[in-house]
Amino acid sequence: MKIIVDCMGGDNSPDANVEGAILALRKFSDLSVILTGDETGIKNILDKRNQNMDRIEIVSAPTVITGDDKPTDAIRLKRDSSMMKGIKLLRENDDISAIISTGATGALVAAATLRIGRIDGVRRPAFCPILPTMKGGIVGICDSGANPTVTKELLVQFAIMGSRYLESAYKIKNPRVGLLNIGTEAEKGDDLRRETYEILSGMKDINFAGNMEARDLLSGDFDLVVCDGFSGNVLVKSVEGTAMLLMKKIKDDIYSRRRYKIGALFMKQMFKEEKEFMNYQNYGGSVMLGTEKIVVKGHGSSDRKAVYKCIAQAYRMEKSGLNKKISKSIAESCIDDTDS
Amino acid sequence: MKIIVDCMGGDNSPDANVEGAILALRKFSDLSVILTGDETGIKNILDKRNQNMDRIEIVSAPTVITGDDKPTDAIRLKRDSSMMKGIKLLRENDDISAIISTGATGALVAAATLRIGRIDGVRRPAFCPILPTMKGGIVGICDSGANPTVTKELLVQFAIMGSRYLESAYKIKNPRVGLLNIGTEAEKGDDLRRETYEILSGMKDINFAGNMEARDLLSGDFDLVVCDGFSGNVLVKSVEGTAMLLMKKIKDDIYSRRRYKIGALFMKQMFKEEKEFMNYQNYGGSVMLGTEKIVVKGHGSSDRKAVYKCIAQAYRMEKSGLNKKISKSIAESCIDDTDS
Repeated sequence: MKIIVDCMGGDNSPDANVEGAILALRKFSDLSVILTGDETGIKNILDKRNQNMDRIEIVSAPTVITGDDKPTDAIRLKRDSSMMKGIKLLRENDDISAIISTGATGALVAAATLRIGRIDGVRRPAFCPILPTMKGGIVGICDSGANPTVTKELLVQFAIMGSRYLESAYKIKNPRVGLLNIGTEAEKGDDLRRETYEILSGMKDINFAGNMEARDLLSGDFDLVVCDGFSGNVLVKSVEGTAMLLMKKIKDDIYSRRRYKIGALFMKQMFKEEKEFMNYQNYGGSVMLGTEKIVVKGHGSSDRKAVYKCIAQAYRMEKSGLNKKISKSIAESCIDDTDS
Repeated sequence: MKIIVDCMGGDNSPDANVEGAILALRKFSDLSVILTGDETGIKNILDKRNQNMDRIEIVSAPTVITGDDKPTDAIRLKRDSSMMKGIKLLRENDDISAIISTGATGALVAAATLRIGRIDGVRRPAFCPILPTMKGGIVGICDSGANPTVTKELLVQFAIMGSRYLESAYKIKNPRVGLLNIGTEAEKGDDLRRETYEILSGMKDINFAGNMEARDLLSGDFDLVVCDGFSGNVLVKSVEGTAMLLMKKIKDDIYSRRRYKIGALFMKQMFKEEKEFMNYQNYGGSVMLGTEKIVVKGHGSSDRKAVYKCIAQAYRMEKSGLNKKISKSIAESCIDDTDS
């Protein structure tokens, strides 16, 4: 299996990206990687690690897309960037399965949608990141930002794609699907939520568990949360932000008094584990569901372990034949096409 | 000043509501309260506390509105409920300034909007709860759920009402206003956000600080966040939910090993303070901005201290002449009326 790793554009690029690829090569013996980006920089990192070049190809790309580039401009004007060269390779080569990027999200969404193409029947690709729950499991959030505005048909497709993803890549049987809403009762929210609620309630392929309020995201009562990309983005980022700030506050508080510092010595292991638990990098990237080939967006601040996780996700998605399952499930869902 | 306290409908009603009212009477010597709800229950609590009845009036209301009642049905069919009796009194008596309720949110929003009426020029009332920031300050979120669907004109009005509220009730000068969005750059998000961004950028009465991502809510870089009621609800509830679950996790972890329990003994005071910091009840209720008279919605799980805080908020809002300031500021803003 061949996977492209865009080595530029992240906070720790290219080091974290190249090293993440090395970790993945060690883990998966049938994996080859194509590294796009600053050739000299990439080579230096590989040399430093004495990395055998057997399953590695480097594709030189002189420019980098940043968050300041307008997505559509990035596609048109930065064709020699690590991301666009990667996307082009992915599109043109049947033997390449996926791309991983820690670069600009907007450009990646635009390039994936416009250049890679969608799975048959899928209207819009969507992001589905994973967060840990308090019961030790995981929860997927679809969409988390690719589609700020949606229709009920799109929300239903997110439910289908997310369900198949959790079954295939995480072996979760009959994933419990919640619809993000401002209350749990069926009639809560706007027309969009009420109509989506009704459709989801009647679907065979979806284990619909009703509306979910944002406070219950990490409860472990849901495996997948379906939402428009705007509120999904708010949801994921506020969980991340709150967890990060609270951990920082606890740390600051500990250093504020001597007796707290002493207490913390007894609890070192506990705090370490909690920090790991809340480190979203441990849960991989935001996979994009619905594109004809696999696209995984790693967090901008990804370290090598996070990049490795993204590659491993793409690897498992491809092995599981996810896209065929999505295509089949979408075809069988028979959602009315007229509104979109 | 006369304030109505709806004593039913909360998890700890009527006890917490009556006791919260007693605390407020002690604090504010020119305050009278009207307690609506189960007369016998309310009297028993007052008797138990040997409460002097000088500034207390009880209005008997035999029924209670619950979360299961459809808001519009609640208004029509439960006129003898503690909430609707309170709303009616508030509407019909010029000398009554405000109502506090810990009951069903939907019914309160509907009753406040339909029965109390709006401040001149205000199109839709909106909720503005307060959360603590990591820098020791506060941040207001407007709207947090009264208006799931909005227009740019509504968002601009939320910015005006929230700014005047923070200036009046919290003495924050030139509150820094953020627009909740899925990225910080001006062109991020959907048309609604882009157009709102442009209007807010050009307003004199608003100290617009640009787009805010959900992860920065508690950063202390913003005093007010403006958003549609759907994503605002997601924002507030996910912060609350994440904070609560993390504190619970830490507590569970502490009890899992003996050495952690020992360490926690040294840090008892710290954890207590952190719990208090994250207890949203300490920050009062969701005030409703834009209604002709003051409406404050306390959390369903409010204890007496939380109810007291809600009453104190209403008292200060009224004293500060907030509604006149909102009316003036809205009139001066000259937002184009054609779209809504």
